[in-house]
Amino acid sequence: MLIKEMTQAECNDFLSRASFGRLGCSLNDQPYVVPIYLAYEDGYVYALSTRGQKIEWMRKNPQVCVQIDEIAGDTQWVSLIATGRYQELPEPQYKDEHDHARKLLEKRHRWWRTAMAERQLKSDDQLIEPLIFRIHTESMTGLRASDETSDFEAKKS
Amino acid sequence: MLIKEMTQAECNDFLSRASFGRLGCSLNDQPYVVPIYLAYEDGYVYALSTRGQKIEWMRKNPQVCVQIDEIAGDTQWVSLIATGRYQELPEPQYKDEHDHARKLLEKRHRWWRTAMAERQLKSDDQLIEPLIFRIHTESMTGLRASDETSDFEAKKS
Repeated sequence: MLIKEMTQAECNDFLSRASFGRLGCSLNDQPYVVPIYLAYEDGYVYALSTRGQKIEWMRKNPQVCVQIDEIAGDTQWVSLIATGRYQELPEPQYKDEHDHARKLLEKRHRWWRTAMAERQLKSDDQLIEPLIFRIHTESMTGLRASDETSDFEAKKS
Repeated sequence: MLIKEMTQAECNDFLSRASFGRLGCSLNDQPYVVPIYLAYEDGYVYALSTRGQKIEWMRKNPQVCVQIDEIAGDTQWVSLIATGRYQELPEPQYKDEHDHARKLLEKRHRWWRTAMAERQLKSDDQLIEPLIFRIHTESMTGLRASDETSDFEAKKS
């Protein structure tokens, strides 16, 4: 197995294709990790969430990370971590960004639009609207493992 | 879609069957998330890692979390988060715990034993031995989503 560090271009490409990952936030140095649906474009990871602990925490501490992996097998995988800052996109201040994020997410997650529409029809008491936010990425690092033999090992054998 | 909170017994059962998850650690309130192979037994998540940033961080701040999910579809998934404290298991002090952890992990990850053996044969310069650690779990919460209709919705229709 050969493990290689990914270049920034490779990280960018991998993140651009991702639609699902894990979001890590932290409060008083207690980390907290949840799965999220996401979309990446031009330095921003866009995501949506219902309200809850992670939103409360990110409002207090906007330093977050996003981890994405693609695991084809024990020796064939990619894992990327991006760190950045949480920012909510409330309307009307961020109407353009909010609409853009929503479009990006809907393109990847048609199920979500349907699910929300159903939920809105079914729920008598309250409209459950997920919160849209973005993460301004500050750093990205990625590792790619493959079955290839390294040059060093190839020369030895 | 119906989302239910899992009981402690359900969390325990789900975690006991897991062999892979994401580990969240934090330093100066900057979270960091990585994929890990793991095994759970009697209040401890056992895991192994090569040395690196996460080990350095957990030595400085042992408050960590482990997130595990099983996603069968957009409306059928389980997600669990356990928080706890990081503890290394160096030999000889923790020989029994170390051996036990190794056995638990090897039972789930035969590939790992093979991969490590190969690596030891191939590497001239340094024996790469992964570090074994455990996390003493302090809390566990889980959510399970299913296509079932809730009692409330069933009564309405």
